[in-house]
Amino acid sequence: MELLDKLNWRYATKAMNGEVVPQEKLDRILEAIRLAPTSSGLQPFEVLVVTNPDIKAQIKPVAWNQSVVTDCSHLLVFAAWDTYTADRINEVFDLTNKVRGYENEGFENYRQMLLNTYPQKDAEENFTHAAKQAYIAFGYAIAAAAYEGVDATPMEGFDPDAVDAILGLKEQGLRSAILLPIGYRDETNDWLANQVKVRKSTAQLFKIID
Amino acid sequence: MELLDKLNWRYATKAMNGEVVPQEKLDRILEAIRLAPTSSGLQPFEVLVVTNPDIKAQIKPVAWNQSVVTDCSHLLVFAAWDTYTADRINEVFDLTNKVRGYENEGFENYRQMLLNTYPQKDAEENFTHAAKQAYIAFGYAIAAAAYEGVDATPMEGFDPDAVDAILGLKEQGLRSAILLPIGYRDETNDWLANQVKVRKSTAQLFKIID
Repeated sequence: MELLDKLNWRYATKAMNGEVVPQEKLDRILEAIRLAPTSSGLQPFEVLVVTNPDIKAQIKPVAWNQSVVTDCSHLLVFAAWDTYTADRINEVFDLTNKVRGYENEGFENYRQMLLNTYPQKDAEENFTHAAKQAYIAFGYAIAAAAYEGVDATPMEGFDPDAVDAILGLKEQGLRSAILLPIGYRDETNDWLANQVKVRKSTAQLFKIID
Repeated sequence: MELLDKLNWRYATKAMNGEVVPQEKLDRILEAIRLAPTSSGLQPFEVLVVTNPDIKAQIKPVAWNQSVVTDCSHLLVFAAWDTYTADRINEVFDLTNKVRGYENEGFENYRQMLLNTYPQKDAEENFTHAAKQAYIAFGYAIAAAAYEGVDATPMEGFDPDAVDAILGLKEQGLRSAILLPIGYRDETNDWLANQVKVRKSTAQLFKIID
């Protein structure tokens, strides 16, 4: 299976060589993110695609000075909604009705159920829920990048408040959840490039209940 | 790109026909989960692979009575660690040293840093962090299932405490985070089977910072 080969090929790249990911590959990685499933289809996040060298340089020191932040081709910043609001929920349901060309009673009841629950919840709880949806898309993005032969570095090690300030996310009702620099590995300078991939065994990770 | 075709083909299947997913396809989906990246490589979750009809029948009523819980081929229950402990962290680092055949000072320092932070944190915060890692693997699983032509239903709508009780997860230091029934769509009985996929536009979802 080609996909598994690619998932074996990838690793959390610790050094990149600055080479630029071709637009058509980037487009396919972003399209995978766009297609990722999310709770109630709300897609409660945006992804900032950073190539600006000054912005990358500002983010690097608040991301443990990891070289891939500046040496990557594109730095993807997954920024989740800071909370769920009625406007945000309605926008998605209205879009669905528009695309499908009709209204459906069950769907409208579902909209009301969400409107009666999410916006009343604590913003922090809502952000955590939205961030989890971003993590699904993040998984999709890593798999899609690998499928394209593009390296990526899943990165939780950063100061989210500092990244939010650099990108002006708070004003947009967003909070950075996770980073994904994509680009190409610099094998000679990456200590992790030639290490064996370590994973728990199937027996450790899975329990069959039959 | 074949992967994108498959990601377009999939949808949150609302009715399944009971057909069994062949073992080799199941194995490849589980292998994708096993290969998914996680924070510090801790893989802080287990996946229960439920085919037992009695257990599925017990879970269905605590999962909004969704028919796919019983009509799926395999019900994957992603169960995250209830917290990070020194034993759990050490097990992963020891495994890595064993597989790679040597110890590395930087890696041992990193182990100490984790030992000095995670176990002291609030269990709920740790569970949320572990659950997020499971969501990455969940994204991998959905993509891998689609790649195999296997349907799946991403499912947050369930009572986690009830599922934990049915599967005895608490005693194992686990908490159910998210469910993924996999199987085959029953097109004639699935209202969602022939609906247009609705997603926000690229312009809405991505911001280019160049």
